[in-house]
Amino acid sequence: MSHNKGAYEELRALRRRAGTLGSVGSLLNWDQETYMPPAAAGHRAEQSALLAGLVHERLTDPRVGELLAACEADAAIRADAAASANVREMRRDYDRETRLPKDLVEEIARVGSQSQEAWKEARAKDDFPMFAPWLGKMVGLMRRKAECLGVPRGGESYDALMDEYEPGATAKMIEGVFTPLRARLSTFIGEAAGKGRQPDVAPLGVKIDPARQHEFGLQVLGTMGFDLGAGRLDVTTHPFCSGMAPGDTRLTTRYRDEKFTDALYGTMHEAGHGLYEQGLPKGEYFGEPLGEAVSLGMHESQSRLWENFVGRSREFWAWALPRTRGTLGLKGSVEDYFRATNTAMPTFIRVEADEATYNLHVMLRFELERGLIGGTLAVNDVPGEWNKAVETYLGLRVPDNRRGCLQDVHWSFGLFGYFPTYTLGNLYAAQLWEAYTAKEPGFASAIERGEWLGLRDWLRATVHVHGRRFPAAELCKRATGKELSADPLMRHLERKLRPILGI
Amino acid sequence: MSHNKGAYEELRALRRRAGTLGSVGSLLNWDQETYMPPAAAGHRAEQSALLAGLVHERLTDPRVGELLAACEADAAIRADAAASANVREMRRDYDRETRLPKDLVEEIARVGSQSQEAWKEARAKDDFPMFAPWLGKMVGLMRRKAECLGVPRGGESYDALMDEYEPGATAKMIEGVFTPLRARLSTFIGEAAGKGRQPDVAPLGVKIDPARQHEFGLQVLGTMGFDLGAGRLDVTTHPFCSGMAPGDTRLTTRYRDEKFTDALYGTMHEAGHGLYEQGLPKGEYFGEPLGEAVSLGMHESQSRLWENFVGRSREFWAWALPRTRGTLGLKGSVEDYFRATNTAMPTFIRVEADEATYNLHVMLRFELERGLIGGTLAVNDVPGEWNKAVETYLGLRVPDNRRGCLQDVHWSFGLFGYFPTYTLGNLYAAQLWEAYTAKEPGFASAIERGEWLGLRDWLRATVHVHGRRFPAAELCKRATGKELSADPLMRHLERKLRPILGI
Repeated sequence: MSHNKGAYEELRALRRRAGTLGSVGSLLNWDQETYMPPAAAGHRAEQSALLAGLVHERLTDPRVGELLAACEADAAIRADAAASANVREMRRDYDRETRLPKDLVEEIARVGSQSQEAWKEARAKDDFPMFAPWLGKMVGLMRRKAECLGVPRGGESYDALMDEYEPGATAKMIEGVFTPLRARLSTFIGEAAGKGRQPDVAPLGVKIDPARQHEFGLQVLGTMGFDLGAGRLDVTTHPFCSGMAPGDTRLTTRYRDEKFTDALYGTMHEAGHGLYEQGLPKGEYFGEPLGEAVSLGMHESQSRLWENFVGRSREFWAWALPRTRGTLGLKGSVEDYFRATNTAMPTFIRVEADEATYNLHVMLRFELERGLIGGTLAVNDVPGEWNKAVETYLGLRVPDNRRGCLQDVHWSFGLFGYFPTYTLGNLYAAQLWEAYTAKEPGFASAIERGEWLGLRDWLRATVHVHGRRFPAAELCKRATGKELSADPLMRHLERKLRPILGI
Repeated sequence: MSHNKGAYEELRALRRRAGTLGSVGSLLNWDQETYMPPAAAGHRAEQSALLAGLVHERLTDPRVGELLAACEADAAIRADAAASANVREMRRDYDRETRLPKDLVEEIARVGSQSQEAWKEARAKDDFPMFAPWLGKMVGLMRRKAECLGVPRGGESYDALMDEYEPGATAKMIEGVFTPLRARLSTFIGEAAGKGRQPDVAPLGVKIDPARQHEFGLQVLGTMGFDLGAGRLDVTTHPFCSGMAPGDTRLTTRYRDEKFTDALYGTMHEAGHGLYEQGLPKGEYFGEPLGEAVSLGMHESQSRLWENFVGRSREFWAWALPRTRGTLGLKGSVEDYFRATNTAMPTFIRVEADEATYNLHVMLRFELERGLIGGTLAVNDVPGEWNKAVETYLGLRVPDNRRGCLQDVHWSFGLFGYFPTYTLGNLYAAQLWEAYTAKEPGFASAIERGEWLGLRDWLRATVHVHGRRFPAAELCKRATGKELSADPLMRHLERKLRPILGI
């Protein structure tokens, strides 16, 4: 490389340093959700705001701009595929970040931290009015953020926010994907409700000590190839994964006395995210785009692959049941558990929804949050509109806000434009699964033998190691040979669920 | 106040901000000792170094110097007792901190974080040579630190380090306290060994599930008045208390299957520290001297008061036994447990030593670390010299380094000049106890009834609320009416132990 190798290395060092600060902010968040005493909430908001401001300062350091310009002008860097992708993505980050004033970044972190606490309490007490002012503040901050970022020509504020999570995606594109998918899913679910017979979920109603559920969860993590020497599993109100630092990827789940599969699939879900984080080349590229996940849609595909395509398979239960008879006290057969975990039955809680109905939960959230950001939906109307949408999409009457608009943590700390990535994740997951199982037709029986690492290693090689080197759409095409499509998901659902439902 | 009220408030805001950053560093440390995955250790060292550097930058900001000068010149501030004490202590901190170069501060944090991990492994494997290079690095850094801070005229390097923990204390002063105390303790222990009969410790040898020990620990914390809504109790290799932030004081302990009193007294000890942290006026003065503990000797007095004067009393067992018969399965009588927890018998582990022998452990550490910093003791000679000292002081042959020079975490992250504060703490504790029980002669029976808050509230009013307003020696005199003396400790030991030992 030319003399600008110096500029590139300096740029990398600045990003790594900002990443190190950012990883401290992640620890603050993780701690707030796991072990922080309640009385510390006020100060935690200050800590988070301070850290967010410091990270922002570093990412927008004018020196970064100078170095970027130098790297972009450098032919040797342009000729180096990895370096040029790294620089391209750093440019994207720098341009986004410099549009945001520091006080706004700090305020979002501060209010997000406070608002999350308010959400926890409001959810526990089923008290939407307690949460409403915080939601209002957060929507206001997000609209201001969108304005700072700049609304793309012909687009809407929502696009500016979503671009953070799924680069290049717009509300219109999402609508274009969701509308036909919704029609196909509704037809299928309608058929299931009309002619189908929902499987018996009684085998899931076993009361199991959380400590034993936890033990089993750790066993599943080990089988997935999640490295517990470089990660953890803890308990929270709302499960998440934080790939906070090199060698430090933390998962959380929540245990219920009944329906142990909620925690089980929650754990597998977060561990799917965790494997992506552990598979990113953070040793070489921590804090840099090449060491970061390409998009949240792709991130979600990793979690859904393990949760649904592995976890809700007949072969999974054939592996799991003999291992847990003694410890979990499960009574039914492999077929019973396979069927019980594969319904097509509308329910209230998104994270506990079955594969057939899950995406409808996402779609209604997308509509509501698009309205909140666009100014066509007022905060106080959220419960009413939520409940109406649940009736339209799922045919259910929401009994309380805990099981309605208070169920998800996301909006409390400003994740608007994030929900659609969940459905994109399902689509990516199905397509990746088709590609992998076409290549490895014996994987189903490998699942039964507990030999799951083939999938992890293939995902690592095709997705994880690339970081943000290729845009998500291109990464998908490289991994699967095709553009993203909803067909693999629909094929998967039809193939698996029709026999179970008898339709 | 004059127009300089502005300067004072700006100064306070700068300190609070540095304090907020510092509290993030404390979370990093706490997490490293409790939940951090092993593979994260390398990056954690970088995070800690970065945070330490940022805190240092803020504490040494030239603006702080200007504001200090403005405040010191202000008659209105000088006339305000609280403000002038706050400014006096900020000056002390500023002068100390500005003598340290940032790279040294970062290096100490980085090496401390790494070295602590090395210590954990070396201790577990009883492998001193594994730890030796880290100890060597740390001693080197500490000698450099002492040099930067400046050795007081007629003093030694060690003094410059100790001044951080016990302002104004010097090695000579400590020697002056320790030498006669050692003679008195040795005479007493010798008499006990010669004519006394050590109590039967068999009642402590009950195997108790850690979960039940933990439950009981929480009950004790509640009775002490430790606010668990603003704190926690977790498990670590080496118990500690971190009063990391407003509303956030975290204790740790360690459970053994046998000898449950180690964890019990460890918990009471750390909770004594925790009550001090919770009693400091952090709402008003977080990050400022008036919101900080006056000295580590005074801090240690709070922990030893609860551990020894409350926890090792007959009345404590009269309270505890009826409450734990069912859950802990204890067999003996109140008298059995009172006697079993009040030996005068040399043992290897400092934190598990009885009240009579404890200070001898401190004294030998003081001598060794003084030698390490002074350059008269080489790192490789530490095990040999340690073992010799244990033989001289305690009459025991050290069987391995785990029970010898690898038992304490302190040196691994640079706490030199810290150990003497443990004995000062015992002296302060005894004197505070005499003063309180003279004023409240009924407190012994209150202990038996589980009414312990009187002691907490008195300590809060006489010690905690003052922060660093008065120097430790003056605070002692205000609280007890007397200068610090070793007499109360010796009176306490004689009065309690002679009847038990039959001497």
